[in-house]
Amino acid sequence: MSKKLNNDGSKLKIIALGGLEQIGLNMTAFEYEDSIIVVDCGLAFPTDDMLGIDLVIPDVTYLKDNIAKLKGFVITHGHEDHIGALPYILKEINAPVYATNLTMGLIEKKLEEHNIANKIRRKVTKFGQIINLGCFRIEFIKTNHSIVDAAALAIYSPVGTVIHTGDFRVDYTPVFGDAIDLQRFAEIGKKGVLALMSDSTNAERPGFTQSEKTVGKIFDTLFAEHKSSRIIVATFASNVDRVQQIINSAYKYGRKVVVEGRSMVNIIEIASKLGCLNIPENTLIETEELKNFPEDKTVIITTGSQGESMAALSRMANGTHKKVSVGAGDTVIFSSHPIPGNEKAVTKVINELSRKGADVIFQDAHVSGHACQEEIKLIYTLVQPQYAIPVHGEFKHLKANAKIAKELGIEKENIFILSSGDILELNSEEAYISGKAPVGAIYVDGLGVGDVGSVVIRDRQHLSEDGILIVTLALDRYNNQLVSGPDVVSRGFVFVKESDGLMEEARQVSLHAVEFCLNRHMSDWNKIKQNIKDQLSEFIWKKTKRRPMILPIIMGVEE
Amino acid sequence: MSKKLNNDGSKLKIIALGGLEQIGLNMTAFEYEDSIIVVDCGLAFPTDDMLGIDLVIPDVTYLKDNIAKLKGFVITHGHEDHIGALPYILKEINAPVYATNLTMGLIEKKLEEHNIANKIRRKVTKFGQIINLGCFRIEFIKTNHSIVDAAALAIYSPVGTVIHTGDFRVDYTPVFGDAIDLQRFAEIGKKGVLALMSDSTNAERPGFTQSEKTVGKIFDTLFAEHKSSRIIVATFASNVDRVQQIINSAYKYGRKVVVEGRSMVNIIEIASKLGCLNIPENTLIETEELKNFPEDKTVIITTGSQGESMAALSRMANGTHKKVSVGAGDTVIFSSHPIPGNEKAVTKVINELSRKGADVIFQDAHVSGHACQEEIKLIYTLVQPQYAIPVHGEFKHLKANAKIAKELGIEKENIFILSSGDILELNSEEAYISGKAPVGAIYVDGLGVGDVGSVVIRDRQHLSEDGILIVTLALDRYNNQLVSGPDVVSRGFVFVKESDGLMEEARQVSLHAVEFCLNRHMSDWNKIKQNIKDQLSEFIWKKTKRRPMILPIIMGVEE
Repeated sequence: MSKKLNNDGSKLKIIALGGLEQIGLNMTAFEYEDSIIVVDCGLAFPTDDMLGIDLVIPDVTYLKDNIAKLKGFVITHGHEDHIGALPYILKEINAPVYATNLTMGLIEKKLEEHNIANKIRRKVTKFGQIINLGCFRIEFIKTNHSIVDAAALAIYSPVGTVIHTGDFRVDYTPVFGDAIDLQRFAEIGKKGVLALMSDSTNAERPGFTQSEKTVGKIFDTLFAEHKSSRIIVATFASNVDRVQQIINSAYKYGRKVVVEGRSMVNIIEIASKLGCLNIPENTLIETEELKNFPEDKTVIITTGSQGESMAALSRMANGTHKKVSVGAGDTVIFSSHPIPGNEKAVTKVINELSRKGADVIFQDAHVSGHACQEEIKLIYTLVQPQYAIPVHGEFKHLKANAKIAKELGIEKENIFILSSGDILELNSEEAYISGKAPVGAIYVDGLGVGDVGSVVIRDRQHLSEDGILIVTLALDRYNNQLVSGPDVVSRGFVFVKESDGLMEEARQVSLHAVEFCLNRHMSDWNKIKQNIKDQLSEFIWKKTKRRPMILPIIMGVEE
Repeated sequence: MSKKLNNDGSKLKIIALGGLEQIGLNMTAFEYEDSIIVVDCGLAFPTDDMLGIDLVIPDVTYLKDNIAKLKGFVITHGHEDHIGALPYILKEINAPVYATNLTMGLIEKKLEEHNIANKIRRKVTKFGQIINLGCFRIEFIKTNHSIVDAAALAIYSPVGTVIHTGDFRVDYTPVFGDAIDLQRFAEIGKKGVLALMSDSTNAERPGFTQSEKTVGKIFDTLFAEHKSSRIIVATFASNVDRVQQIINSAYKYGRKVVVEGRSMVNIIEIASKLGCLNIPENTLIETEELKNFPEDKTVIITTGSQGESMAALSRMANGTHKKVSVGAGDTVIFSSHPIPGNEKAVTKVINELSRKGADVIFQDAHVSGHACQEEIKLIYTLVQPQYAIPVHGEFKHLKANAKIAKELGIEKENIFILSSGDILELNSEEAYISGKAPVGAIYVDGLGVGDVGSVVIRDRQHLSEDGILIVTLALDRYNNQLVSGPDVVSRGFVFVKESDGLMEEARQVSLHAVEFCLNRHMSDWNKIKQNIKDQLSEFIWKKTKRRPMILPIIMGVEE
């Protein structure tokens, strides 16, 4: 379908650096000859099995190995799963960053927090604008999403054009700014598009996503129905349009607005400064001023709609919020759906709020930021790509997107679901997966980046299951006589007061294990430790059916 | 509404021993003068924060303190959250158990596994039958639920009748046995009922729960649509009716049936023996025989519909099942909805199955076992109780049930949502919460019951977050000189190879902390340990922003 631009057999490489199928770690490299550009640089939040981990960022070995080619990072929108890894990655790889207005505002805030804002070259781009990066030209195309200033990218390469939708939806009546630039998608499509990489998150859902404005109407209705109570609305900090609509309803009903939660306060500040949010004068008040107004004349907009235990709403619900206490007479509106995995945490908060007497509303006041099936079909039909490369979503979502592409007439062999690390080489003649780039999830724990690996996580898992038993003893360094111990200490194993007998028996078992070795003149301390470990774990398993970590420590003493 | 039977002011006590609002820990005591009966004795599965815990059972201190009054356990149905704690509790409190046919079959299996089957008196009851326990008479009333032989209880006490629905729904066309005995509910209601304790799980859902038979029709349709592939159906092991319907469809389409998963095999064996399941001859085959039949002539019924990592379906999905491997050509039907909290685990299994090429069907092939709003209204209207005591469900569900009761005309002050431990005293004159019984969640970890408490859990939590640093040193017992160490060992903290420097620094910090104490002639080892802890944790926090558990161990050596 695309015009043949370069027929010497050379190909564009699309490299799934972040693992396209892994929600939240979005990063794709485009490589052609001496040029590489990277689309998005997201972080992921740890899954339950990544104990103690704060964040996960992508491995960028491939970029380091090809640093001379790297022309810059091009960012589609300002969600954490698209910008969150930037400050970490940019510390290792200094390259310019390109993004639209609000997206760049949020990136700047991050770079400032990491003290690298003055080191990184940045360019704010406009919709319709084309930037040149090596042999690539990149155009930012207006889309709609649950954050303002989201962009799709047209990536013009010597072998054809790739359109990457970013996260998108179609909203004909958006709250802020224009509707998605469907004409431009059509125009580029008409000229011929090599590949379309489109958002798959809602590819299993039939129909269309409703306009964000419908949520505004629901707020109006809810505010009218709950005239005599204080209203608390929980939503995503980054959904500026949602915040705008809550403020609109508050203003209409003569209520003052308080914003709670650090991330929400930050984003509202940035969005206001950049002109993406319009707050009427004398509407916003400080939390401390709440007491100066009747409760039915106030609204609190808060973080915590996902049940995050440290967020403002959770603290209100469990009574640990310093300034706001929830009770009878409060109406709490969840303007969100739980992200998969958060259902239980959200339910816990709802139960706590209900128990305090609050009226909790948990339906209708939300629409998704992602395209449903009819919207995905619309983009495919406007763009008419030669190849389809579903992105963003779990495997089942990518598969559902692929199914749509097939229904629309794209041949099965022209549809690619990439796995993490896959290098797809393509031009208008052919496309195939030609290899694997080194990829992986790098764990961030406190200040440490990458110093917690699978061994440490496995140890944490082990410790969390059954705790640890530590056996200490001192041996004479010269004659290998036992001069102290063995002593047994446990943590996270059993409540010691109730199991004195067990711990004394464990000490005896350790003593016998040591004596067995010493009587046989074993001088290899590793072997002595192994014998203690074997004897003790067998004993503990028999007695308790548990497998705590067992850690023998031998101290050498010189007498 | 109820007839006044006893006007000397004496009252019936209803005691929420299991915590009515906590899903899965169902246990309610009924006490009148010298008699106590206990309805249900359930276990709960641990929440995410109960690290390493296998099961949770209720604290029965109240029953032990009143053991002379205890007449027996009366069980409504055979789900784990109603019978699971029995073997643990009966080891401490020997009392007779009363239950219907299949329910008792499942209880017996448990008692056998715990080697106490011959010590516990049991009586299988029939629907309509009334048993006498002290001053109580108890009648078992037929209901419908997602397990066969579920019963509601009419508890006749000297001050009036309490109806406890157990978990129930209304199914006019059940797969096995009769529809719920609505006439009997009406008859007892007509005579006057003091209190109704009714299932609240689906009290937020409008309408009626569809008949279990509708699922059978859906199986027929799905089997017709997938004639050329092997079919794997995942469902709850205990849903005998569901298994019956899968077998019916398999038989109709000439497929052999394999059952996978230990709990499923167990329950099918018990249900068949007790006549609750009717398997046509030559239908069931062993897993090993699969290879003798064409794939499109087989069905595998399996556990793992909740994404449980050790269940058969998960092992098939991740390729670790020894006998069954899933791939293209398999159709996997989830005949279940995820229980709140399991969504992510279920999604993971779906993604793995899809990636292997299986066609995954995750809709329609399930109905709930609990009454929706119209069914709850029906029971209230038939029974017309004086008091409403919503049971079974989270707080928000109990509240939704209370709202229904209020809409039906029960006065607000006659509706009681009990918290764990609440003692409700009632007769036809008045009802009020008069006190608290000792209650709590007892953790079962391996063979240990109650030896893991909040301190141990907190330690496990701490260990799982940032691991442990152990500092060992040996001191001369007489002159308090340092004779060995300090040595620092870590587990679950950082990957040591990459942080040799850090560990050496940690050793130096510990050494300085010890020397500081010894130079000042401090002989209290606890103070020395505390100083090491303080210095080292400050150092580690500064360097890493982590807070591992720090455990100093001092060994005494006699020179």
